[in-house]
Amino acid sequence: MIPHGGDLSRLRQRFPDAPEPLIDLSTGINPFSYPLPAIPDTAYTRLPERAQIRRLKEAAAGAYGARDPELIAVAAGTQLLISTLPRLLPAAQVSVLAPTYGEHAAVWSAAGAAVVHGAGPEVLQSGDVAVLCNPNNPDGRRLDAAAIETLQSQRARRGGRLIVDEAFAEFGDAHLSAVSLVPLPGLIVLRSFGKAYGLAGVRLGFLIAERAVVARVEQALGPWPVSGVATHLACMALSDAAWRQATAGRLTAAGDRLDSLLAGYGLESVGRTSLFRLVRHGKAPAMADALGRAGILVREFPDRPDWLRFGLPPDEAAWARLENALAAAG
Amino acid sequence: MIPHGGDLSRLRQRFPDAPEPLIDLSTGINPFSYPLPAIPDTAYTRLPERAQIRRLKEAAAGAYGARDPELIAVAAGTQLLISTLPRLLPAAQVSVLAPTYGEHAAVWSAAGAAVVHGAGPEVLQSGDVAVLCNPNNPDGRRLDAAAIETLQSQRARRGGRLIVDEAFAEFGDAHLSAVSLVPLPGLIVLRSFGKAYGLAGVRLGFLIAERAVVARVEQALGPWPVSGVATHLACMALSDAAWRQATAGRLTAAGDRLDSLLAGYGLESVGRTSLFRLVRHGKAPAMADALGRAGILVREFPDRPDWLRFGLPPDEAAWARLENALAAAG
Repeated sequence: MIPHGGDLSRLRQRFPDAPEPLIDLSTGINPFSYPLPAIPDTAYTRLPERAQIRRLKEAAAGAYGARDPELIAVAAGTQLLISTLPRLLPAAQVSVLAPTYGEHAAVWSAAGAAVVHGAGPEVLQSGDVAVLCNPNNPDGRRLDAAAIETLQSQRARRGGRLIVDEAFAEFGDAHLSAVSLVPLPGLIVLRSFGKAYGLAGVRLGFLIAERAVVARVEQALGPWPVSGVATHLACMALSDAAWRQATAGRLTAAGDRLDSLLAGYGLESVGRTSLFRLVRHGKAPAMADALGRAGILVREFPDRPDWLRFGLPPDEAAWARLENALAAAG
Repeated sequence: MIPHGGDLSRLRQRFPDAPEPLIDLSTGINPFSYPLPAIPDTAYTRLPERAQIRRLKEAAAGAYGARDPELIAVAAGTQLLISTLPRLLPAAQVSVLAPTYGEHAAVWSAAGAAVVHGAGPEVLQSGDVAVLCNPNNPDGRRLDAAAIETLQSQRARRGGRLIVDEAFAEFGDAHLSAVSLVPLPGLIVLRSFGKAYGLAGVRLGFLIAERAVVARVEQALGPWPVSGVATHLACMALSDAAWRQATAGRLTAAGDRLDSLLAGYGLESVGRTSLFRLVRHGKAPAMADALGRAGILVREFPDRPDWLRFGLPPDEAAWARLENALAAAG
């Protein structure tokens, strides 16, 4: 079982006296959620029709910069796409830029592929399939789109595919996303709706790739791949450029504030995306425990016990509790 | 592409002058939806935690009569389970009691299996995998649980599996469901939340099977298989025996009324479940057209042009329009 963030009930078991409400800084989900609009009853009662799925793809193409909505498949969360790909794209050798989100290597291993982890981007030149999280989770490393185009153009000559997981690409560098390169042969880009829009519970993710790959994914997921609720919310949210712009500013300000706070308590910056910060500290495990006792869940890494990943506090009450807990731990 | 019900936008294209609101009688979705409760924002914003998924399984085990919540896998709709199974359970020969819901045969064929359709239940004795919709869609044929136990006990001796799709089992005969037979070796039962509770847009389905099959399905779907909204709604709805009992009575009354109405216009009863009626008429295509012009979508069957399937009208306005349209068509 791969450990993930977000498990507040485990924190509650471990620290039953922690003050409520618990504060979850263990995920990379935008705390400034897209404001929930009124949702019509039919989004719950009726199956989404093909025309509605088409509008969802058009909204996604606009928001992500895809050349054509037909190059997009929709799914009930990016994780489902990650879990499904190995059964659709047979591969003997898979290379992964590491460390990164653990599910990629796990699903390819489970499908029988030999998975090679590499700490440098040269690992991405090998493998029938190469996997890059961009920007990377948790260390924030990034490749720009031009480098990805060069990389995959070379890989494609020998039939290689490249999966670029852009779960944390929103609100970041505009030159980073590989979406507009599609349909570059063998390139598969994943985008997560829930993290960027703060609506992870609706389960919605997108795959952008050549038409043949999109068709294979759509066949694998069947005729009703996403909920009416997700379709309704995302059609609105993905079309809302004003919200995205305002939120980018809010996230930048919160990230800067978090940098200052963490640095002030001796937590050394290792990496970042718009939605989280990765820091290093000699006593990181003790610090995570102290935060946990204070009702604050952060992300630890079994393989890197000196690392902690912090999401952005959602409000002033959370900032105050975080600062107090860091002061008490320090 | 397999034709399905529910495509109102296609009806609108075909009959642009049809009076709105269109009435969708083409699906088998309960028109008396579970009343939508207030849904907490966290159901949208947060990923469902493992403990919440566990409570969902407990609610499903109670509602469906499963022996143990650990024998249940949850998914974003039964269709996703149907589409996923062929890639998890290799089979050379698959037998399907036909005619039935078309996706079963399609997904096994696409996975490379030889699919044999049989009109009688003896076909279910053959095949590495046998598929039974119970009660069957669209003709309402049914096998009781005792017959399924005998059938699968024989099949299991030579390693055969049996998929029982109970999409329309709710509100029906209590002796029909095979859920309580699980973990009978090789038996896989599917239950649809959306149809019975009138909430098809939330995408939620269940697979009940031996623990090894459940584990394989859970691995294939990944750590967040269903939305927070589906989890919240279904935990409430599946625990609400009073609603189920009241709704069963309402559906029986609506079904009886539909029987009388259709018989009065010469539509001969062929089969039924609690959520739809299948009828036969020599001029069924003309009748479907007349209903379409009146803004009422019913289900047609390309292979059986003399058949029409009617869902239950949701309210008195729909009853009146249906009766008027039938009178005008007749």
